Amino acid sequence: MPRLLIDTDPGVDDAFALALAARAPEVDLAAVTTVFGNVGLPATTANALGLLAACERPDVPVAAGAARALVFPAVREAGHVHGEDGLSGQSARLPRHPGLTPGGAVPLLARVLAESPEPVTIAPIGPLTNIALLLAAYPDLKPKIARLVVMGGGLTGGNSTPAAEFNLWADPEAAYRVLVEEDVPTLLVPIDLTYRCAVDGPWLDALRDSGPLGALLESFTPSYRAHYTSLLGRDCTILHDAVAVAEAILPGTLRTERLPITVQTTGPGRGAVIADRRLGVPPSPGYREIDVAVDTDLDALRALVLDRLR
Amino acid sequence: MPRLLIDTDPGVDDAFALALAARAPEVDLAAVTTVFGNVGLPATTANALGLLAACERPDVPVAAGAARALVFPAVREAGHVHGEDGLSGQSARLPRHPGLTPGGAVPLLARVLAESPEPVTIAPIGPLTNIALLLAAYPDLKPKIARLVVMGGGLTGGNSTPAAEFNLWADPEAAYRVLVEEDVPTLLVPIDLTYRCAVDGPWLDALRDSGPLGALLESFTPSYRAHYTSLLGRDCTILHDAVAVAEAILPGTLRTERLPITVQTTGPGRGAVIADRRLGVPPSPGYREIDVAVDTDLDALRALVLDRLR
Amino acid sequence: MPRLLIDTDPGVDDAFALALAARAPEVDLAAVTTVFGNVGLPATTANALGLLAACERPDVPVAAGAARALVFPAVREAGHVHGEDGLSGQSARLPRHPGLTPGGAVPLLARVLAESPEPVTIAPIGPLTNIALLLAAYPDLKPKIARLVVMGGGLTGGNSTPAAEFNLWADPEAAYRVLVEEDVPTLLVPIDLTYRCAVDGPWLDALRDSGPLGALLESFTPSYRAHYTSLLGRDCTILHDAVAVAEAILPGTLRTERLPITVQTTGPGRGAVIADRRLGVPPSPGYREIDVAVDTDLDALRALVLDRLR
Amino acid sequence: MPRLLIDTDPGVDDAFALALAARAPEVDLAAVTTVFGNVGLPATTANALGLLAACERPDVPVAAGAARALVFPAVREAGHVHGEDGLSGQSARLPRHPGLTPGGAVPLLARVLAESPEPVTIAPIGPLTNIALLLAAYPDLKPKIARLVVMGGGLTGGNSTPAAEFNLWADPEAAYRVLVEEDVPTLLVPIDLTYRCAVDGPWLDALRDSGPLGALLESFTPSYRAHYTSLLGRDCTILHDAVAVAEAILPGTLRTERLPITVQTTGPGRGAVIADRRLGVPPSPGYREIDVAVDTDLDALRALVLDRLR
Ligand SMILES: [Ca+2]
Ligand SMILES: [Ca+2]
Ligand SMILES: [Ca+2]
Ligand SMILES: [Ca+2]
Repeated sequence: MPRLLIDTDPGVDDAFALALAARAPEVDLAAVTTVFGNVGLPATTANALGLLAACERPDVPVAAGAARALVFPAVREAGHVHGEDGLSGQSARLPRHPGLTPGGAVPLLARVLAESPEPVTIAPIGPLTNIALLLAAYPDLKPKIARLVVMGGGLTGGNSTPAAEFNLWADPEAAYRVLVEEDVPTLLVPIDLTYRCAVDGPWLDALRDSGPLGALLESFTPSYRAHYTSLLGRDCTILHDAVAVAEAILPGTLRTERLPITVQTTGPGRGAVIADRRLGVPPSPGYREIDVAVDTDLDALRALVLDRLR
Repeated sequence: MPRLLIDTDPGVDDAFALALAARAPEVDLAAVTTVFGNVGLPATTANALGLLAACERPDVPVAAGAARALVFPAVREAGHVHGEDGLSGQSARLPRHPGLTPGGAVPLLARVLAESPEPVTIAPIGPLTNIALLLAAYPDLKPKIARLVVMGGGLTGGNSTPAAEFNLWADPEAAYRVLVEEDVPTLLVPIDLTYRCAVDGPWLDALRDSGPLGALLESFTPSYRAHYTSLLGRDCTILHDAVAVAEAILPGTLRTERLPITVQTTGPGRGAVIADRRLGVPPSPGYREIDVAVDTDLDALRALVLDRLR
Repeated sequence: MPRLLIDTDPGVDDAFALALAARAPEVDLAAVTTVFGNVGLPATTANALGLLAACERPDVPVAAGAARALVFPAVREAGHVHGEDGLSGQSARLPRHPGLTPGGAVPLLARVLAESPEPVTIAPIGPLTNIALLLAAYPDLKPKIARLVVMGGGLTGGNSTPAAEFNLWADPEAAYRVLVEEDVPTLLVPIDLTYRCAVDGPWLDALRDSGPLGALLESFTPSYRAHYTSLLGRDCTILHDAVAVAEAILPGTLRTERLPITVQTTGPGRGAVIADRRLGVPPSPGYREIDVAVDTDLDALRALVLDRLR
Repeated sequence: MPRLLIDTDPGVDDAFALALAARAPEVDLAAVTTVFGNVGLPATTANALGLLAACERPDVPVAAGAARALVFPAVREAGHVHGEDGLSGQSARLPRHPGLTPGGAVPLLARVLAESPEPVTIAPIGPLTNIALLLAAYPDLKPKIARLVVMGGGLTGGNSTPAAEFNLWADPEAAYRVLVEEDVPTLLVPIDLTYRCAVDGPWLDALRDSGPLGALLESFTPSYRAHYTSLLGRDCTILHDAVAVAEAILPGTLRTERLPITVQTTGPGRGAVIADRRLGVPPSPGYREIDVAVDTDLDALRALVLDRLR
């Protein structure tokens, strides 16, 4: 069975994504690693442990990674969106997990890759710090990575700043290293698509009524849902990371285009993805062609996520 | 009659824009100033002089401005698009003009503003160097500027680089000063709209057959038209600057939105406009709300330009 | 008699420099222009006017220039060093001046240059904004500039930041344009030398007792002298700008070296001069060779200033 | 016995430094890791292996690290100084080493730290890429680092560029992370001091005649010595890295000062150390106080190195 590694900063949408991966019959969730991001590393790590326990997957090893960005300190965390604990203040509802794998995220990722007979998919759904460190410190393991399915970036604007999406903005140097400088097959799932995959109130109601896991996940959404409802002017929730993980467990779920991209690291555009969408021009130096998710069957995706989380 | 000043770097589309302004009964074209850009300053200045002569407007004073960008030297000119002489190699067809107003572009702009009883519209349709110098060296004259109608920028990508449109890319520091730091009423006409205003082969044929000025202008288009036809995969020509000048002579031609914008001056996004299109967020420091042209009656605009240039 | 133009942001040391120029028999002080800097433009302009009146030079025209930096807004002014009014709170002691020349600093500088039969020396002793505007808006006048004698920069560190001296830090883009991109003969007088020219308590006492102008100038020094005394741990005052003006009125006063330099405009080194002092290497692109003042007869300089201001 | 780790890019001066460490009775050289730098990673790794063999230390494990900089690709290597093979074309004289430790530099460094009962000194004498990765991927091991003795930086200018010394210039982001963002005790040995420690022709002659190791090391110096002789105008060789390693094996060899520093990562100053040497000012944000080597007994140092390498 194909193996999957998830690097995450839970986070409400990470919680949905983790649950999706933990319950997917198509993949073997080989490990989960954590990174600072939506909230600080202690909280994202505690949340990852508790979510795996809630999914009855205490067998999945969890290790804690970077508490800060690769080069420059990031400015602030996204706690105002996800709540102080990353789960709308509801993280105490999570069960206990037997405990953290010692040694840290990067060594755990490296060990899983080294020991796996087949290449492994990695789904980074937080800042790309751990992944940049993995690729830079263990370049010999790159052939063991089947694909990076990265949630991040925005082709027509950002959410953390006018230009930058949160995951890239939180560590632009790591994003530049992973997305532009490496040659591992990479699919980027930007917010242009994840916003279109929004789920609405009835979807969340159906999730809540579907069983204990659905009820638990729904219980994490109040402040997150309020954020998006106020932002977008209608009752909705954006499950960014779950869109990427759906593709990671069922390749082909998302329709992609190949685009040359780079990452801006300075000025007001710090953390922005720049895609070269000009027609008829040769590739620019400093850009790399990667796959970018541009569309999906929206209703089918929503139904899939609901079905898997019930 | 409202006065109009045009700051330009002709350039094929500048030629159309200049002719439009020179023949508009609605405005008094008080002066034309030139700037480096599509080609070097000597060529843009010669072209501006010849174009006014061809429009039978030798009365319009012309002065030469900046031969280079405000702070850093620009990398290259756009001669490959407009031909080495800026007019597809056809500039020798232009008649003689009585001659340049001595003293330079910025003093001429300042003199027109100072002597005008009413505020004057300025249409900068090249790099913003002269305009930045005018505003910085003559701040007392700002109340004499009715509006800047600026051709430049791209909200969803550029043409000179993946991120930057030519006019802003050619002098990002000047663009930042004019668009973000000043408080003069400003309308930005970005390439997102000008590309949609493309004219096709039959339009150019009709122009050619409409009379001597139309025939002259059409004669400047071959290499420019070939550039866009190859780029866009269909026979078309983009009259960027003419779209801005249409608005300058007939206010209300373009539909606008107010958007907070800034200009990136470093990295791969150098010269990019960043617009804050996020919903529900307070304004970011370093951004200014300006009017951005987002739509127009495309066929009416094409008909207007054709009618005025015949 | 050689003409001299002074562009200044008084400021205590500017006051000494202005007085030196106003009383120098060797030069014709053709005009004084003001710029934001040590304090805001209204105060620097009022101080320049009053200082010329106090020197019995109401004949020298004064015009007000840039109230802000060329591209990006500067962070703060140096009012904590020079006092809120730029003259240690003593500016009310200055006599009245017949008034400002209308039209602004850049047009006045241009007019003096245009009308002068011989090339004119310019001594910029504040942020370089007006000078950048002059060179950019009136490039034809560059042959009329004999030399720029610029007070600014630090070769081994700054005073406003660890890397940047105040005048360059206040407008790094203007400094880059003037010092690196232009070809006007330029002498830079950096703080490495001006600190060595410090005057001490007895020197200030002698000045105070030398006559009415000396007493007036000494009356401006208390908070400025306190700043340097606390900084350097001994009773002293640094007359930065007067060192440059001494050279402007008596060429050869300072010993110079030719050095390739550039100006950093980004990051923690924003506003720093970088000099290439490596031996045996070819010139780097983006650097220009200028003259840098490296030494002088310190006691002779102090005696000269004291003698001229009595 | 105190343990020492050396991270290196041999390089002629690295060869001297490695030999010094390999033969020091005061320390246990626990491992050597390699990094790109003076020449590419394959050559620096081969050189490190051969040098340890030549020093009769095949017991020291060697692992290969980063082949490129942490974030952005570096522009060029220093092969013109050290010769294409890093050792003036003489690397074929080196004996064979039993072989590389698999798994890479960062895991080897981590393993030595984890297994060491006492904190270990690390002497990074190449670009800081491996060290940045170690600190970022294994933050729990930081208490196991006694001190970083880093050769790099220049307080009054650089050698690779006017502002930047080679090791910092080759990976400024890694240098920023290690020197400014971490809290491990750090001593920086800048070129200001290493140039003063130059050795001359007679010193090299004495080394050559001292025995087989001395003769081998001297044989690596011709192109390197020619570079410095041409640069500095006298027959000399600069053993940058050996100065740092002398301190690492005999703490207290260098006299140090505590200085707040930062690293510039953009513009012409990319890779420069900025030290805040202003008196009487509070610490600036974005700076960290570290120890900087400022002086030593020059003759004693030269004698020590000569004595140890004979
Ligand atoms: Ca996430
Ligand atoms: Ca144009
Ligand atoms: Ca001053
Ligand atoms: Ca080295």
